[in-house]
Amino acid sequence: MEDIHYTCQWGMGKKWGARSTETGMSRLALSDADKEARDWFMRTTEALGCNTTVDAMGNIFAVRPGIRSDKPPTFVGSHLDTQPTGGRYDGILGVTAGVELLKVLADNWVETEYPVGVVNWTNEEGARFPLSMVSSGVWAGSIPLETAHNLREIHPGTATMASELARIGYLGKTPASYESMPMGAHFELHIEQGPLLEMANKKVGIVQGVQAYKWFTITVKGRDTHTGTTDLKSRADALLTASKMILHSHRLATTNSALASTGILNLKPGSTNTVPGEVTFSLDIRAPKDSTVQRMAAQIKSDFPKIAAGQDVMNCNENCITGLPCEVSITEDFDSPATTFHPDCIAAVHQAAHSALGSNSHNLIMDMVSGAGHDSVYTSKRCPTSMIFVPCREGISHNPAEFCKDEDCALGAQVLLQSVLRFDRM
Amino acid sequence: MEDIHYTCQWGMGKKWGARSTETGMSRLALSDADKEARDWFMRTTEALGCNTTVDAMGNIFAVRPGIRSDKPPTFVGSHLDTQPTGGRYDGILGVTAGVELLKVLADNWVETEYPVGVVNWTNEEGARFPLSMVSSGVWAGSIPLETAHNLREIHPGTATMASELARIGYLGKTPASYESMPMGAHFELHIEQGPLLEMANKKVGIVQGVQAYKWFTITVKGRDTHTGTTDLKSRADALLTASKMILHSHRLATTNSALASTGILNLKPGSTNTVPGEVTFSLDIRAPKDSTVQRMAAQIKSDFPKIAAGQDVMNCNENCITGLPCEVSITEDFDSPATTFHPDCIAAVHQAAHSALGSNSHNLIMDMVSGAGHDSVYTSKRCPTSMIFVPCREGISHNPAEFCKDEDCALGAQVLLQSVLRFDRM
Ligand SMILES: NC(=O)NCCC(=O)O
Ligand SMILES: NC(=O)NCCC(=O)O
Repeated sequence: MEDIHYTCQWGMGKKWGARSTETGMSRLALSDADKEARDWFMRTTEALGCNTTVDAMGNIFAVRPGIRSDKPPTFVGSHLDTQPTGGRYDGILGVTAGVELLKVLADNWVETEYPVGVVNWTNEEGARFPLSMVSSGVWAGSIPLETAHNLREIHPGTATMASELARIGYLGKTPASYESMPMGAHFELHIEQGPLLEMANKKVGIVQGVQAYKWFTITVKGRDTHTGTTDLKSRADALLTASKMILHSHRLATTNSALASTGILNLKPGSTNTVPGEVTFSLDIRAPKDSTVQRMAAQIKSDFPKIAAGQDVMNCNENCITGLPCEVSITEDFDSPATTFHPDCIAAVHQAAHSALGSNSHNLIMDMVSGAGHDSVYTSKRCPTSMIFVPCREGISHNPAEFCKDEDCALGAQVLLQSVLRFDRM
Repeated sequence: MEDIHYTCQWGMGKKWGARSTETGMSRLALSDADKEARDWFMRTTEALGCNTTVDAMGNIFAVRPGIRSDKPPTFVGSHLDTQPTGGRYDGILGVTAGVELLKVLADNWVETEYPVGVVNWTNEEGARFPLSMVSSGVWAGSIPLETAHNLREIHPGTATMASELARIGYLGKTPASYESMPMGAHFELHIEQGPLLEMANKKVGIVQGVQAYKWFTITVKGRDTHTGTTDLKSRADALLTASKMILHSHRLATTNSALASTGILNLKPGSTNTVPGEVTFSLDIRAPKDSTVQRMAAQIKSDFPKIAAGQDVMNCNENCITGLPCEVSITEDFDSPATTFHPDCIAAVHQAAHSALGSNSHNLIMDMVSGAGHDSVYTSKRCPTSMIFVPCREGISHNPAEFCKDEDCALGAQVLLQSVLRFDRM
């Protein structure tokens, strides 16, 4: 808990409670605040006897030697970057629990069979550079290095991942690849970010996999016109059209038992008395099954152009005057198919959780699927992987008030440590 | 036409055609480009024998003496500021036609009975500082000087009207008031900005008045949450809610035979995988009658909170999961009641148009009401006022491709000149 709150001085966000630790976080990837947190991670793990390596995506690998070195290290990992209005636990808990694990091993003179490592992955959130899990994606060979390096930051600026990595001194020379930095396994402790554990009164989630998701950028083009002189029939109103699409995506999510969300929307030209001629928005769709996400993507590709053309796809245009058609373009930016974790890792976590929780453990453990993506999605393509979830208050995440009790953080760290030791022996 | 295109070098916008004059304009009020255009206006009118006065809102009055001075000048006026993606005619035509009028009077040694003036009003568009016609509003005593001076620019910055007036050297010492700068009359030549003249094959619109309008700022507050882990029921999605409101305002406009438009929308925090917790948007509603605008405003104030609370006001929530309630606040920023112009000015324009158009004139003239607001709305509260409209291509305005034929600009200027001379004699 000390490390969590100490490192949250870098990128501190909105205050939500009276105590000094009750603030959110705003530590966008590769910002000055992220550099400070990275420097701390390097310093601290080196002081605990680790060798550190920075790769071409700025991923930082801290490795503690084992008795033997003929197999790759067992890693724990997560991320130190946050959402623009995020909390103190998402990602941060996983990395600081890794550092805690290194401390426990050092304090107790533990020698592991093989090396043990902790990794801080870059820009997991996809909040500044709009591809989530991009740097574990490059490591896994799933995302080309060039695509990642050329990603531009979302908001005003013109910075790219490559320019920001260089600026803060984290553009490493080691190739970002599972071949240069192989892993024996990857365990990740994370807050659930949803309400299921809390609602069921459980303490530990044994994560079986991650649901599928896709990200799109949608651009609607209409025509800038005067709001006072252009009758409704003569408008090609890009924002009215985008509003219908957002509503429709919500309906598609409902009928498919899936999720659809728009988190970013920008319009042009942005004047009270000009009908917007252009709107760009993000669309994030998710479901447990790949086939559901694929079906929704197909429905969007078929329905959005109809909405842009003025058709009443939602059966909702009653008492609406149909304007002139808009154009729509739909770009798929990101695709993360459903992920299934490795049985060996799941088994290690299961045993660790039972051992940490004691006699009543079967009532406090829950098998579950992650709603959010995590770097473990990509590591699972190259090494045995699984995750440990702990409850967070009201399931709220990506919000300054995100909160995980000290005792739950501690229990998660305990299960993480034991999972790694069990896997090492295995 | 030379003056129009010459002065459009300051704040030149997007190219839409092959010729050098085929670009739009982006000359936001009190920008450096606006200062250049103002300097030109001062220089040019002074060289034509005018005395210039700058008032505390940066309005510039150029007055050419008449034979007598016991009555105030007959003014023509409009504005040199533009939309962020505006055209070369909106406002600019009216001011340059005023300068042309001064040239014709000078070239022909015309002595008017009373002084004749040309005024350039500040920030008519309300595009940079979000109150349209704000400086004629201060002149008329309808808007307090302090309100106007403290207006903040819409986009990133923190500049106010007062700070920008001072910065570009146009914070005049003369009080901005009809008492310090009285007008005998105010005539304004403007492009129609709508399609009616063109569709009816008419050349000159005799403007009888201006429709009513109100501007609102709407803020919707929900809760930032994770897009991947928060089920639809547990979301307070501020953007989904705002989308419903935008659609509903369009419906209200339809059923009231009125207009409703959203030109600005900003959201927080702005991340692909965070459900937006806060959305702010503008709403511009208009109708010929005050009572219609008032009824719509009342419907909005009653329906938006219901939409925020999750009620199915639009009967459109079928297959939509209702989330958690959002909060909504509605601020009225601006109110411009319906305006009726002065019969003497309307008569002067009528006679001028008939004289300029010759024998077929009755087929080429149209009485009409303005859909857009103009500074003439406020001058009409303090002196006889009316407007002259000329057609613009496809009725498009607030768009770089806004276009008015040379011959229509010339005809408008001719009608303006004759209206002023007739009023002067009258
Ligand atoms: N855990 C987390 O918030 N990851 C970001 C990727 C996602 O959007 O699921
Ligand atoms: N003419 C014009 O575009 N005026 C701006 C005020 C309005 O929105 O009507």
